[in-house]
Parts: sequence; structure tokens; C-alpha cells
Amino acid sequence: MRHTISVLVENKFGVLTRIAGLFSGRGYNIDTLNVAPTQDPKASRMTIVTRGDDATLEQIVKQLNKLVNVLDVQDFRDGEYVDRELVLLKVAVDSRTRSEVMQITDIFRAKIVDVQPKSLTIEVTGAGDKIGKFIDLMKTFGVTDLTRTGTVAMPRK
Amino acid sequence: MRHTISVLVENKFGVLTRIAGLFSGRGYNIDTLNVAPTQDPKASRMTIVTRGDDATLEQIVKQLNKLVNVLDVQDFRDGEYVDRELVLLKVAVDSRTRSEVMQITDIFRAKIVDVQPKSLTIEVTGAGDKIGKFIDLMKTFGVTDLTRTGTVAMPRK
Repeated sequence: MRHTISVLVENKFGVLTRIAGLFSGRGYNIDTLNVAPTQDPKASRMTIVTRGDDATLEQIVKQLNKLVNVLDVQDFRDGEYVDRELVLLKVAVDSRTRSEVMQITDIFRAKIVDVQPKSLTIEVTGAGDKIGKFIDLMKTFGVTDLTRTGTVAMPRK
Repeated sequence: MRHTISVLVENKFGVLTRIAGLFSGRGYNIDTLNVAPTQDPKASRMTIVTRGDDATLEQIVKQLNKLVNVLDVQDFRDGEYVDRELVLLKVAVDSRTRSEVMQITDIFRAKIVDVQPKSLTIEVTGAGDKIGKFIDLMKTFGVTDLTRTGTVAMPRK
């Protein structure tokens, strides 16, 4: 079962360490995690995507709520939300394959952000499914480098 | 001094906790951090943006290199690289201000990803300067929610 959890925290030393420790201490794997300041510079928002059983997650959410410096915890398992991710990937190209890679990039409304003689660096954003499909297509040309931000999510209402 | 550090790690329990602990233990603040799998599912890439003096950072990079499960550390302080971030923000609108917010969104090539009677949820991507300017403009209308992925970076060559 896949879960997307959003944790609003105060900007204090060691908060990230304590939260990451809570997951690893219970053997709960983190797929992706990101943390950055919000519109209020005193607070940061952490978005964590995990896979695991519901009972363990419920325990983790309870424990998160008890931590000092944690202001709010949202579990997006059920609720309606928008989720997005950004991926930078470097694709190997030559004079024959460059235009084909550019066409697929266009179809996915992705952007070419750097061009080198033998590679293109591409930025693609979207929900998980779209990004997964784009990466799979690019793998047929050769992905030499890939870095993704992990999912961020926002409730619709 | 601002630093962008990219750490390639093996997908093992507790790696994130140890790396976050290294920064907080030395009183080195993390601006943004993200971690997600790479094209090789056995490895993840972590991108960390920090502010602090060069001498302390040099110590941290040395210690990172000594950690088990750390495969590679890149300090993007000097090198040429592409960096990008994705931000989701919810902006308060009414029938008068909606079109103005939509115009600015167009100018920044941002995307409206959800519409509610009194708000628009917008996705904007780019380097730090562009995103900072967009957020500042949206604050004049009222930002009620904001979540950012933190920077990801990739060397140009």
C-alpha cells in the first residue's frame, strides 16, 4: 500500500533526523522524501512517500503527531489531492536519435534544459504515472543520469 | 555561502537518518533536501542545499565520503550545473483577480493544476530566482498553501 504523508514542522535543528529515524527505526521504507520552507519562513513542509502496511503507518502518524516541532500531519491515503514531481534526466543521443528524443519530449510537454554533443538534459514534471512512462521511453535511448525531487502533494479544497 | 550537494547512496535502511544527523550534529542548517531512486533502483540520489562556511562544509563532505552506503558525493559549489525546483502553491482569487493571476501564470510558463471557487492551485518550475519572483508576485494576491520539492541538480557535461 502506497502512502503520501505531508508533515508541517518548525524549522529547528534535528527535526529531519528525528522524523527519518522514526521511519527507519520501524523498518518502514521511504520511497521519496523532500523538505523545504513554506510561505512562512519559520515552518517547513516535508512530503514522504512510503509503501507498507496500514497498521504500521497508523503508528508512525501517531508518533509523528507526538514529536516536538511537528505542527501538522496529513495522510493523503484517502483524501483528494494534487501530486507532482520533477525529474531531470540525461539521455544519450547521436545525430540520428536526437530528433526522435525531441519529439517524445514535446509530446510529454517536457523541456530540454541543456544540450551537449552526445546528450540532452530534459526536465519533466507530472504525476507518477506520466513520469514513469516518460522514463521508460527514454531508457530505450539510454539514460545516463537521473535525479528526481520526490512527490509533493496539496489537498484540492 | 550557498552550497548544492548531491549524494549518491545505496538504498539501505537508515542512510537518510545518518546523513541528516551529520548535518544537524555540526549545526549546519539544511535549506532543502530531497531523496528519490535513480535509474538504478538499487541507488538513490539525495540533493541538499545548505548555507554555511566553506571549512565546515569541507568537513561534512569528507565525512559523507567515509559513510558506508555512500557511493559518490558531488559539491556543485564551483562546477557548471543545471538546477531546477518544483513548487505547488494555492493562491486566493475572486472573480476580479482570477484573470490577473492567470496572466502572470502564463508569463512564467507555470501551470494551473486545480481550480476551486476561491482558489487556484499552480505548479511552477525553474531555477531559484524565477521561482522566488513568482512566489513574491503571488503573495500580493494571498498564498494560502505552499509546498516545494527543493532543488535537484545535474552537471552539464
